[in-house]
Amino acid sequence: MSQFNNATIQKEANVYYDGKVTSRTVILEDGLKVTLGIMLPGVYEFGTDGPETMEILSGKLKVLLPGSEVWQEIDGAETFHVPGNSKFSLEVFTVTDYCCSYPKSL
Amino acid sequence: MSQFNNATIQKEANVYYDGKVTSRTVILEDGLKVTLGIMLPGVYEFGTDGPETMEILSGKLKVLLPGSEVWQEIDGAETFHVPGNSKFSLEVFTVTDYCCSYPKSL
Repeated sequence: MSQFNNATIQKEANVYYDGKVTSRTVILEDGLKVTLGIMLPGVYEFGTDGPETMEILSGKLKVLLPGSEVWQEIDGAETFHVPGNSKFSLEVFTVTDYCCSYPKSL
Repeated sequence: MSQFNNATIQKEANVYYDGKVTSRTVILEDGLKVTLGIMLPGVYEFGTDGPETMEILSGKLKVLLPGSEVWQEIDGAETFHVPGNSKFSLEVFTVTDYCCSYPKSL
């Protein structure tokens, strides 16, 4: 099981959609900000400030990225990128474990 | 907002009850193991190996500790202790953010 060492972890969770999406903020040793989160089944829309890299660790879902009209299906480990100042939609079918990183925070 | 510094965090989540209870394992600088978790509304029972200290960060719930016949009501920040090799029950009414520590792991 992979892990982050020498990290700073915020104790309190980030909570969205009545707790169906939650995460904890982690600052990695090199300064990169990531959030480790869980999404339960549901339909969600998120906005970005800076660009985000979303690494799905496990789960079955589909994502609609900005500028696309095609939902991308994801089943298990997969990564997608979201531009800054945009919105993306997710339809989550099974409990989904993710690690979202915010490269601009470096 | 409080945080843990120089900690190790496991990337993958621990998932219980179809994702209604999830957590991430963190090893603190001094070696103490904690889990940072979220419980959604529901009724749960958990077993312990070693003793556990459960710090509720936010949420409304009640807990039935081993050997007790009285449910203890919790609303917001509160801490309770669970002996090792026991079981405890929880009824969670609102999204509950917690930090569980495992002192024996030191």
